[in-house]
Amino acid sequence: MRVCGIDCGTQTTGYGVVEWDDRALPPSQAPHLVSIASGGICPPKKSSLPSRLAFIYAELTTLFARYLPDIVAVEEVFYSVNARSAIRLGHVRGVALLAAATSGLTIAEYAPLTIKSSVTGYGLAAKQQVQFMVARLLSLPVAPEPADAADALAIAICHIHHAQTLSLQEVRAV
Amino acid sequence: MRVCGIDCGTQTTGYGVVEWDDRALPPSQAPHLVSIASGGICPPKKSSLPSRLAFIYAELTTLFARYLPDIVAVEEVFYSVNARSAIRLGHVRGVALLAAATSGLTIAEYAPLTIKSSVTGYGLAAKQQVQFMVARLLSLPVAPEPADAADALAIAICHIHHAQTLSLQEVRAV
Repeated sequence: MRVCGIDCGTQTTGYGVVEWDDRALPPSQAPHLVSIASGGICPPKKSSLPSRLAFIYAELTTLFARYLPDIVAVEEVFYSVNARSAIRLGHVRGVALLAAATSGLTIAEYAPLTIKSSVTGYGLAAKQQVQFMVARLLSLPVAPEPADAADALAIAICHIHHAQTLSLQEVRAV
Repeated sequence: MRVCGIDCGTQTTGYGVVEWDDRALPPSQAPHLVSIASGGICPPKKSSLPSRLAFIYAELTTLFARYLPDIVAVEEVFYSVNARSAIRLGHVRGVALLAAATSGLTIAEYAPLTIKSSVTGYGLAAKQQVQFMVARLLSLPVAPEPADAADALAIAICHIHHAQTLSLQEVRAV
């Protein structure tokens, strides 16, 4: 299974593609995760909002075509500093969901607490803890940069952990 | 000049295409406005959010290709009932701006007060007043339905009024 996590942001939109080979492993074993790609999409700062959205949409569509994920995982967002920044974040998130939909990909959503808890064991973990644990879980020598890329990888790992739990439950039910 | 006004909404996204023939008229004359098309884009209620966004994006892209507007006009939005609804509205607005950008169209933005004031002469006019004045300015026998379509037409008319004021100023400066 290959998951593309996306961390939407008005300045930088992080992405992280993680693969988990779930065929040969016994269901009780911890998943072996491999980082395929990660980074940040940063549209030109001085361009207009519609141009920035078009940039993000084009970059995400290219990413999906290049890495062919089975699923796209994003963070649920229900709050923000204020309505203005919420609307701005909504613009980017809408475009990200659209890019996944027009690429024919299924989308999974996870609450911020669930993502942090899935990676660090603690729902209110600091950004640095998430970066540290993402690097550890993916056997990376250094923490992924920018922090948005680490957050995106965390979202992808969260989905894999949930998928593994679900498949474990299925095995037990059989 | 042909303007497509868009009134973004999570349930219904209104659109209204208005044409103003600005070639033969003396600059002091009130613009003769013609309603080319208007309506509401209502994605299937039970479909997922990404599918709804893809529906709106496809409908807007088709609209732009069919009516070939010179410009797209939208409402500036900086506030909302709460952050949750602001993010949801942001999703739709982001997709609308993207559709205009990928169709190669310029986007003009107007504050809600400016739009209402431009159509009714009063920035805090009620929805019904906007509908009534839109019908009157476009010489329509009845008020456009849904209300979102009337709002979209109001945004398009607002842009034409502003464009006319600008061209008047240019004529005077020459």
